[in-house]
Amino acid sequence: MLKDEVRTKSYRDSIYQNGHLFKDKVVLDVGCGTAILSMFAVKAGAKHVIGVDMSTIIDKAKEIVERNGMTSKITLLQGKMEEVKLPFDKVDIIISEWMGYFLLYESMLDTVLYARDTYLNKDGLIFPDKATIFMAGIEDGEYKEEKIGFWDNVWGFDYTPLKETAMTEPLVDTVDIKAVVTDPTSVITFDLYTVKAEDLAFRLPYTLKVRRPDFVHALIAWFDIEFSACHKPIRFSTGPHTKYTHWKQTVFYLKDVLTVEEGETITGVIENKPSEKNHRDLDISISYKLETDDMHRQASGNGAYKMC
Amino acid sequence: MLKDEVRTKSYRDSIYQNGHLFKDKVVLDVGCGTAILSMFAVKAGAKHVIGVDMSTIIDKAKEIVERNGMTSKITLLQGKMEEVKLPFDKVDIIISEWMGYFLLYESMLDTVLYARDTYLNKDGLIFPDKATIFMAGIEDGEYKEEKIGFWDNVWGFDYTPLKETAMTEPLVDTVDIKAVVTDPTSVITFDLYTVKAEDLAFRLPYTLKVRRPDFVHALIAWFDIEFSACHKPIRFSTGPHTKYTHWKQTVFYLKDVLTVEEGETITGVIENKPSEKNHRDLDISISYKLETDDMHRQASGNGAYKMC
Repeated sequence: MLKDEVRTKSYRDSIYQNGHLFKDKVVLDVGCGTAILSMFAVKAGAKHVIGVDMSTIIDKAKEIVERNGMTSKITLLQGKMEEVKLPFDKVDIIISEWMGYFLLYESMLDTVLYARDTYLNKDGLIFPDKATIFMAGIEDGEYKEEKIGFWDNVWGFDYTPLKETAMTEPLVDTVDIKAVVTDPTSVITFDLYTVKAEDLAFRLPYTLKVRRPDFVHALIAWFDIEFSACHKPIRFSTGPHTKYTHWKQTVFYLKDVLTVEEGETITGVIENKPSEKNHRDLDISISYKLETDDMHRQASGNGAYKMC
Repeated sequence: MLKDEVRTKSYRDSIYQNGHLFKDKVVLDVGCGTAILSMFAVKAGAKHVIGVDMSTIIDKAKEIVERNGMTSKITLLQGKMEEVKLPFDKVDIIISEWMGYFLLYESMLDTVLYARDTYLNKDGLIFPDKATIFMAGIEDGEYKEEKIGFWDNVWGFDYTPLKETAMTEPLVDTVDIKAVVTDPTSVITFDLYTVKAEDLAFRLPYTLKVRRPDFVHALIAWFDIEFSACHKPIRFSTGPHTKYTHWKQTVFYLKDVLTVEEGETITGVIENKPSEKNHRDLDISISYKLETDDMHRQASGNGAYKMC
């Protein structure tokens, strides 16, 4: 958190630039870590901040808060959001940095929603309050060969059983904007004021419009985050077109290599749900079809991926 | 394992170049993973190889072994070395890639020693059979500032409580050979034929001879591995003077910055033992003293580190 410039600066600006929203308010920091957001909120004028985290990092957070003279303004609680006893019945603002890879992998969004439903005042605010998942298609021949082709011959042996495993593991990595072959498309937007925990499992169609003649080896996903309650809305993106964040992008290799022409479309359905075996893992499936009149290039398929 | 060239090549050469040692022998591969070493041993002429691993990777290893036509030659067992039932009472050779960061962190050496004491024939061989830990002093002003100094001012707040934590965490990272200010010194050599589990906790003096006028911000440690049973002994090093391995080096920052002159020595004691709280963690303490006639530069101290 602390070393990710894009992320922390967005949170800081969204809090510091909106002192009129934080002034004299009670704030809840869900998954507070070292309490950086809690301290931002105090500096922005909050009456009191409650920081909750399951980790023993809370002990260090207490030391840090004391070192910065904010002990009387910040209450830090170690435990599950569902179990801790808050010193206030209701809060005015929830702040939280809950996002995981692919937005939802090991994310704390369900905890934020629990906090919202339990503690947020009727007119309360959530920072951030919007999250949108995007997709695009990329050319990635060289890297796919390196990552997936590697298993064809490993020190003289046939390791193709691990190739199948490699194909099912989405890769969290930075993608060069020059590799992006299609327009981006938004898949889903979560409005944190209204979304329910069950909405985090979804099955949605997507359409990608091809920008140039090229090959498509993989689809990628990323997300944008918005603090729309701000006087001047603040957004940041974790896409390939902008500055590095530790979330990078998520790469899903396709079984086929699609040979695409400008103006064609790739259509399909992306499905995401928590794994039945282990609720923390995500099962993601992506079907794809290249829509083209050229029957020699027609291709379609379906990939099953697991983030674990 | 598979992608670490130095490591895997050393194992491969030590096995392939010594067919006379492996011919018709029964081999035990401790912590076999994907069974790469087991397959090397079969190719080198082993009569039979038993691979043991706790992980479900064993299922993939079975598929790989089958794909390479070695199912009749390799028995793969999932479970703890201490609990699995081997198809042979004794083995002629133990092969294992057991080394962790700082050689001993999360290493499987104790499992190898159990396998040796339980299964290895009187004249049996161990690949590899020697491991030596080395130390040196380095100039690392810029990076130390970045890693440790970072906490002085984090987004406008005093985060020094995390600075103390950062100081106690050895850093696993690649060190440029140009940063090395002292001669290397060997701290301890483990002979795998004779070493006992209790020897893995040690407390030993060290002396480092300064090579040039410079500053010393940290001590580093690494290890060398030897296959001395080979016809032509094979060694590899994980030090800063040679090719990259995934073990990199381990960096221990000192509280002081030592201002050193050529020919002076840094002396001290390095102690390593499993943590009482969690046996998988290592508690390492390093005392240091700059031996110099210049009383203005005299410095000594003691650092406590935890690998976890």
